[in-house]
Amino acid sequence: MLFSEIVKREASTIIDGIYGDEFIQGMIQGDIPEEAIKHYLRADARYLFEFAKIYALLIPKVDSKEEIEFLTEQIAFAASGEVEAHHILADYVKVPYNEIIKEGEWYPSADHYIKHMYFNAYHYDDVAYTIAAMAPCPYVYQQIAQRALREVDFDANHPLKAWFEFYAEGMDELMEHIDTWLNACAEHASDAEREQLKRNFLESTMHERNFFNMSYHQETWNFGG
Amino acid sequence: MLFSEIVKREASTIIDGIYGDEFIQGMIQGDIPEEAIKHYLRADARYLFEFAKIYALLIPKVDSKEEIEFLTEQIAFAASGEVEAHHILADYVKVPYNEIIKEGEWYPSADHYIKHMYFNAYHYDDVAYTIAAMAPCPYVYQQIAQRALREVDFDANHPLKAWFEFYAEGMDELMEHIDTWLNACAEHASDAEREQLKRNFLESTMHERNFFNMSYHQETWNFGG
Amino acid sequence: MLFSEIVKREASTIIDGIYGDEFIQGMIQGDIPEEAIKHYLRADARYLFEFAKIYALLIPKVDSKEEIEFLTEQIAFAASGEVEAHHILADYVKVPYNEIIKEGEWYPSADHYIKHMYFNAYHYDDVAYTIAAMAPCPYVYQQIAQRALREVDFDANHPLKAWFEFYAEGMDELMEHIDTWLNACAEHASDAEREQLKRNFLESTMHERNFFNMSYHQETWNFGG
Amino acid sequence: MLFSEIVKREASTIIDGIYGDEFIQGMIQGDIPEEAIKHYLRADARYLFEFAKIYALLIPKVDSKEEIEFLTEQIAFAASGEVEAHHILADYVKVPYNEIIKEGEWYPSADHYIKHMYFNAYHYDDVAYTIAAMAPCPYVYQQIAQRALREVDFDANHPLKAWFEFYAEGMDELMEHIDTWLNACAEHASDAEREQLKRNFLESTMHERNFFNMSYHQETWNFGG
Repeated sequence: MLFSEIVKREASTIIDGIYGDEFIQGMIQGDIPEEAIKHYLRADARYLFEFAKIYALLIPKVDSKEEIEFLTEQIAFAASGEVEAHHILADYVKVPYNEIIKEGEWYPSADHYIKHMYFNAYHYDDVAYTIAAMAPCPYVYQQIAQRALREVDFDANHPLKAWFEFYAEGMDELMEHIDTWLNACAEHASDAEREQLKRNFLESTMHERNFFNMSYHQETWNFGG
Repeated sequence: MLFSEIVKREASTIIDGIYGDEFIQGMIQGDIPEEAIKHYLRADARYLFEFAKIYALLIPKVDSKEEIEFLTEQIAFAASGEVEAHHILADYVKVPYNEIIKEGEWYPSADHYIKHMYFNAYHYDDVAYTIAAMAPCPYVYQQIAQRALREVDFDANHPLKAWFEFYAEGMDELMEHIDTWLNACAEHASDAEREQLKRNFLESTMHERNFFNMSYHQETWNFGG
Repeated sequence: MLFSEIVKREASTIIDGIYGDEFIQGMIQGDIPEEAIKHYLRADARYLFEFAKIYALLIPKVDSKEEIEFLTEQIAFAASGEVEAHHILADYVKVPYNEIIKEGEWYPSADHYIKHMYFNAYHYDDVAYTIAAMAPCPYVYQQIAQRALREVDFDANHPLKAWFEFYAEGMDELMEHIDTWLNACAEHASDAEREQLKRNFLESTMHERNFFNMSYHQETWNFGG
Repeated sequence: MLFSEIVKREASTIIDGIYGDEFIQGMIQGDIPEEAIKHYLRADARYLFEFAKIYALLIPKVDSKEEIEFLTEQIAFAASGEVEAHHILADYVKVPYNEIIKEGEWYPSADHYIKHMYFNAYHYDDVAYTIAAMAPCPYVYQQIAQRALREVDFDANHPLKAWFEFYAEGMDELMEHIDTWLNACAEHASDAEREQLKRNFLESTMHERNFFNMSYHQETWNFGG
């Protein structure tokens, strides 16, 4: 079994948890509170901006023009803020996207996730460690979206169906690159290094779960007073 | 009011919270569960090892031999693992320190704290950002310890009184250096930069709180299944 | 006078030197040795690949999507290897470009230049320090090319006239961004910081001179024996 | 043959060159110009200050308290400025050391050397790449000093004999650590990685040669006008 397959299999319990948690169930039922959506958009706009920057940190670590080109495309995609999917959510809450995200910050769970990715980008000279920490972002969304479309009988006029459709498709090329980097690194890695790669992936899958829960419960920093 | 004083004042509510939380109250009452102490030692041994490494990342950012010398001393102190204070706790649980810490990892709240400090060390060329994120470690322990010794009438044979005494003293020179760096940076910083410095301090004070609670409740990564 | 103008004025003596040196004069006369061109292409292909990577390191240092977008375009341009200008030179020596550059390394003067840029990208959190070290690359080529086209009466079939034309135009938007970053940083910088920015620019202008001389004299590492 | 031995053998031609160059011969003859010594001290004081900082960058890359302790000692030694050896030279030119080094900068060849070491410290997560770039500093001095003491019949009152004696001894523990890191990394490295390690060592040996020649000829940056 390929390393990327082993890692994904181990993450499946967490992803099942995400699917069953309030945020995704609220999205499926179409009754998710508007404040949860707004909080999610405020956090995710900032998360994606950093996601783009973390891709940039990988460019000096690769050796081919093809990899640079691929990473450059990902930067452009992430920096653009996944406009389409986010606008579906902004439409749902009936407030312009840019107005929603004007305020916001790295809320605690998002902050942990972002700093987890940066740590790996700064710490390791092989892209795979950071890729392992970034991969759950596209992977979890793809899995959740595909499962929802498979299992749920969405109404034609369900206001959030388009959000699931956005993530169910179009991730294949990205996931393929990710798998290639992971498996290439795993192949010549020591056991301890493979364990670290797997951990990075599993921790980020947990961070995905925490991120959705953070949004649902509108988690903020509480410095007291 | 000096910037360092403003920051500390804003952190006081969080520190009051830490003092009242179960871990410190359990230490004061002398009835803290042994598993909480073990979990704390496992986490803190690893935290301090990274704390030493983060000090090292600051050395290229300073300009004087005196600052390098001071940081080098701090590395030596942190890398040694605060042996004395930790041995007081190991004695309390009656298991050799090195046996206790053999297993362990960066549990979630410790992981967040460690990556918060690394992020600042890698991201900013002025030491103050990282110093602001590291300062709550000595500062919170000093405040908690001094308050406990002031307010609590410890029995002469209280098994953990020596732990409070360890942290109540000997932090002055370190805190003075920290204040100097913070205030020097704050003086020529923009409002946004000062805000970031303050945030770094307050977030780490929250991380201190989370760290003690993590230990008390023996928080672990839960990758499921 | 704007900071960017001061810096460029101070670099003018070095640029006059580059114009008068053997490489550019050989390009103008059309009698530059083919081995000098090949050495230049081998070095420059590698230099530009790193130039792209150094642009990537700046992305985490900027705050706006517009800056990220601009940097991403520069990465794409630099990673593509200035194909057009390089192909003019490859045609001149009548060997396919990819065959010429197959071998090669960071020759000493190129190595110094590349590591000068990386040092600044890794060391400073403000983009301006690295930008100051990168700016002489487009600026020197633009100045040299514009002066040659102004002063030299190129034959219509001069084999290298197109090379000068490539660099005489199309640098304006890039130079404008560079000037904006430099001047924005210089405005709030201390005297020592401004001095460092200026030095970075002047050192890289010297590196440009050394790079052309390195190519003309086919400088290599000489590890002896 | 151990990797460290292979690398040293390949560097021997360059080291023979250094021994025969004007700086070391002038030191041996005792007729080295005072300006060469002053230039050397100005450059070397700054070089060693960075050498200390580069050691600090290695601390986050190691795994054991013993390695951190060793690196911390090296920082202290390098940051102290090799006071003894430098004072022998200051006495020779009859000017107080601190007065000599008050002015000075990273002259071109020293600048290249320093940025070569930083590049490796920032670029690679394995200490060995940087260690390979730092090792020629103690190794070349040791070899030169031991050879001079072996081959030259120094007068009892030769003013620079003590300088050679300083470097001929006391480097063994440092060289042993260096060899251990190099050989440990080389053992599990690919051919390309081993080649890079060797290059780093050979380039720095060349930088040592350039540094002495820079001092002898009082090389400076020449920004013209």
